[in-house]
Amino acid sequence: MAIPRILTEYRALIASGLSRALAGDSPLYPVLRYHVGLADEHGTPADRLGKLLRPSLVLFTAAALGTDTARALPAAVALELIHNFSLIHDDIQDGDSVRRGRPTVWKLYGTAQGINAGDLMETIAIREAIAADPRLAAALVSATAEMIAGQALDLTYETREAAVDEYLEMIDKKTGALIRCAFDLGGIVAEADSDTRAGLTALGAALGRAFQIRDDILGIWGNDAITGKPHGSDIRRKKKSLPVVIGLTRATGSDRDRLLSAYNQHQLTAADVTAVVEVLERLGVREASEQMAVAYLNQARDAVAQLGFNADDAGRMTELIDYLARRQK
Amino acid sequence: MAIPRILTEYRALIASGLSRALAGDSPLYPVLRYHVGLADEHGTPADRLGKLLRPSLVLFTAAALGTDTARALPAAVALELIHNFSLIHDDIQDGDSVRRGRPTVWKLYGTAQGINAGDLMETIAIREAIAADPRLAAALVSATAEMIAGQALDLTYETREAAVDEYLEMIDKKTGALIRCAFDLGGIVAEADSDTRAGLTALGAALGRAFQIRDDILGIWGNDAITGKPHGSDIRRKKKSLPVVIGLTRATGSDRDRLLSAYNQHQLTAADVTAVVEVLERLGVREASEQMAVAYLNQARDAVAQLGFNADDAGRMTELIDYLARRQK
Repeated sequence: MAIPRILTEYRALIASGLSRALAGDSPLYPVLRYHVGLADEHGTPADRLGKLLRPSLVLFTAAALGTDTARALPAAVALELIHNFSLIHDDIQDGDSVRRGRPTVWKLYGTAQGINAGDLMETIAIREAIAADPRLAAALVSATAEMIAGQALDLTYETREAAVDEYLEMIDKKTGALIRCAFDLGGIVAEADSDTRAGLTALGAALGRAFQIRDDILGIWGNDAITGKPHGSDIRRKKKSLPVVIGLTRATGSDRDRLLSAYNQHQLTAADVTAVVEVLERLGVREASEQMAVAYLNQARDAVAQLGFNADDAGRMTELIDYLARRQK
Repeated sequence: MAIPRILTEYRALIASGLSRALAGDSPLYPVLRYHVGLADEHGTPADRLGKLLRPSLVLFTAAALGTDTARALPAAVALELIHNFSLIHDDIQDGDSVRRGRPTVWKLYGTAQGINAGDLMETIAIREAIAADPRLAAALVSATAEMIAGQALDLTYETREAAVDEYLEMIDKKTGALIRCAFDLGGIVAEADSDTRAGLTALGAALGRAFQIRDDILGIWGNDAITGKPHGSDIRRKKKSLPVVIGLTRATGSDRDRLLSAYNQHQLTAADVTAVVEVLERLGVREASEQMAVAYLNQARDAVAQLGFNADDAGRMTELIDYLARRQK
């Protein structure tokens, strides 16, 4: 599957912006450069950057609205750094040892330094945004607070059942906040009018939901060699990802007993994970999850049509949406 | 010992500002209010705020330079929140279960939610500063990055010896950054000229060093019932606090062997702690540390004299300096 142009065209520009923002001399900076994939653990330059979805969306949006991408670069970099700060702390919270096929920061440098690294990454992100334009910083900080509230909700769901609407509220914060923010930052840089800003928010909201639902599907049925994460890890750590939420809603009788008995344990075994996946598949949960993702991708397509991008830009965004619908990592 | 006026006059104002900034409805907000001492763990309003040194310094400085304290309140609150964000994460990093005589956030809510709580506290702090004045936010974020770099240095010193000048560099960042920032924020709000700003920075730098050195002394010889922290905890967790740094510099022969053998262990026992303290006392380390604190307090007094505050304000600041010289917690 070809990588969509939105995710390729801006990579070099974003990488240069990240390099500049993370060029500091405290002992933590090499840790930050390692995490984002600009360097390996020995400090040797590397090209292990992730998808760069969020900063690419900032730059695309600014460009589609007629602004020079260079003007939007600080906002794009700041947003990518916020995303990466959350990943560093996430990996500590979830005890994950591997991300994008490499050891996580806490695994290499310890939990205490991992907490510091995330803290510094957030601080640098906001510093970059303030220096560029305080309005960008205000939008970024607001989205960051919402994302953290979403992380907190996600954790509380590990110890209780959640309905589908509670799940959606949680992912709108945890994942949606930064995706909507990407479009919002692009709109601010381009001085977009309020109708356009509202349209961008609608696009971001739909795309954010579809993105997280796809992530949840890959978290259970993804190929670990491609995702870079261990298979079934979402189930093992009792995440109420969409398939589990739907599964608990649908399951009755012995299926429900089996799900609850697995989730009531302190730790799930490999056999529990297999049993849970077996129940979810029998209940048609995978198809139901895929259908929800498709519905939000269609909402995103509608939002693009409303925005009145030129044909070329609309084509690029549609290409990205199609890619996100089928992505394997 | 009477509490100096700088630490009493602004408490009600700061408490009201903290209440307003922490009035949110995500499940994390009660955790933040608990941590700063506005509420107990059941959400019942409480008055367990700490010393409020940093925000009091912001308000005092603004007032001494002729500005209304209300105008400086957002900066004062933002700085206190940054300080508290660092304490929440610090307690996780150090594994401390008790702060100000109460269970720490991670102890009550778990490590994962503790990380989120600190992250949200930092984010709210910067949000408040941006809303008040982007120049305040830029100064705050710069001090925050420096503080985190200091925390990272402090951690690296746990596994190696540090010289006194390295120790000073570390505390200038870890502790000094926010104390200097308190004076800096007051100066920004009051639109102080560059000479005054430089004088304020000198005062903050001296006060920051004296404050941390006093903290280090209390960390070994403090009364736990007063400090609210377990006795000898700095030694038990191998912090290179000033007494230990000086001790390692002075110790020779069997004294040095005893210190190194204690610090080379994975974990120090209660007997190790007693042995370390005994060596430090015999080497006159406590007196040497006290003398360094006194020297920086004298520097602070000189800086006050240079600043040309009126007699009343100079008296208040001197009163605070005298208090910090003798504080027991």
